[in-house]
Amino acid sequence: METLKIIKIGGNIIDDQITLNAFLHNFSKIKGKKILVHGGGKLATQLAAQMNVPVKMIDGRRITDAATLEIITMVYAGKINKNMVAKLQTHQCNSIGFTGADGNSIVSEKRPINTIDFGFVGDVVTVQTQTIDVLLKGNITPVFCAITHDKNGQLLNTNADTIASELAIGFAKKYNVELYYCFEKNGVLKDINKADSVIENINTSTYKTLVADGIIADGMLPKLANCFYAIAHHVQKVCIGKPDMLFNPNPKHTTIQA
Amino acid sequence: METLKIIKIGGNIIDDQITLNAFLHNFSKIKGKKILVHGGGKLATQLAAQMNVPVKMIDGRRITDAATLEIITMVYAGKINKNMVAKLQTHQCNSIGFTGADGNSIVSEKRPINTIDFGFVGDVVTVQTQTIDVLLKGNITPVFCAITHDKNGQLLNTNADTIASELAIGFAKKYNVELYYCFEKNGVLKDINKADSVIENINTSTYKTLVADGIIADGMLPKLANCFYAIAHHVQKVCIGKPDMLFNPNPKHTTIQA
Repeated sequence: METLKIIKIGGNIIDDQITLNAFLHNFSKIKGKKILVHGGGKLATQLAAQMNVPVKMIDGRRITDAATLEIITMVYAGKINKNMVAKLQTHQCNSIGFTGADGNSIVSEKRPINTIDFGFVGDVVTVQTQTIDVLLKGNITPVFCAITHDKNGQLLNTNADTIASELAIGFAKKYNVELYYCFEKNGVLKDINKADSVIENINTSTYKTLVADGIIADGMLPKLANCFYAIAHHVQKVCIGKPDMLFNPNPKHTTIQA
Repeated sequence: METLKIIKIGGNIIDDQITLNAFLHNFSKIKGKKILVHGGGKLATQLAAQMNVPVKMIDGRRITDAATLEIITMVYAGKINKNMVAKLQTHQCNSIGFTGADGNSIVSEKRPINTIDFGFVGDVVTVQTQTIDVLLKGNITPVFCAITHDKNGQLLNTNADTIASELAIGFAKKYNVELYYCFEKNGVLKDINKADSVIENINTSTYKTLVADGIIADGMLPKLANCFYAIAHHVQKVCIGKPDMLFNPNPKHTTIQA
């Protein structure tokens, strides 16, 4: 099977124009089929402040009310996504910006209210690969932002890590999918204060120990959950680290194994 | 040749949610291949006011400075475009939102500075139909907002009427293209105070007389220029009127002829 690389980048790359430009330049040079998934970084928070829209939090979790969803749609799907697409075109990487509504590619449902009403947040229900695949075959690179829709006209804010893993799983029947989570660290660290204490391989068994020992905690828990979810659903390769892992030979990073 | 309908809608449809929903419902029922092009309406001006970004005008012409371009990108390509796409999906009209940067479909150049520097405003240079055509053949409806790019990483604000006529001309070799400009009036009016004084046919010769007599003036001049430009470049049919002209049998509207 042909390889498809799905690469997710976060705020640390998006928030700095020079870092982002360098990344997009390198990304455009990656041979073969690829999909880029991006989060939002600090820009949405900045716009909310500028528009006097308060950030709504419950129990330390951010709530997506109607005003926040509007801001997210403008910043993620508008400003960030379209500027990335324009930049990729300068590097001869022909791309098209996507939300899950485009091509009906990612349908989600509004997260059910248990103790917290997260507002307009979507949990992915289905990924439709057909249209995206037509574009991939036409040498076009889809660039996804972290927005989906419910097929009833409602856009929904959706975690970018989840979008990346769901796309990876959706394409795992057709392609040898490699999923790369790029973030600010070299990988999963044994000691959070030591940048080079990268755990190079984590499997289901060592994962449990690392969680029990408190080495994997907080924000790393949902990220790793996405990784193992992908691995359990036929994604061939899942890696976490700095974007360097994509471009240079063998920089340290974490590889997730079944 | 197969027919391709290119339909441009303006602010009067976009600014009112009920009108827009009704339009999108009817639009989704149009059989055959179609492209939707939309402007921005009042929403960008509203956001600019909310963000305290002053509207810059020179000689009554709006200037697109960097802050304004950012707002336009967020509102046109984010908020308006993605909500339209989500809404069309509810009507089983599979669509993808586009700027000219997406698929490298519309390349423009920053308008040269003569007496006025319009800022980040783009005049269309080339339309690339290949990727859009792949989508049309896959029963997908592209939805274009009024933004293009210069292939050097710069997004540019571009007149939506022009985008519609340039797309129409670009596809005129492959399709029997029909171009519809939907606006708030029944068509070009003989007497601006009489809604039913529609001039049903205008050709190159009568156009000159209507301009000389001052019947076609102001904002109608660039609109008509786009119409005749399209007709002169093998677009089969160009109509101006209310969206009704698309959905109902024979409501009054203006048809442009060579």
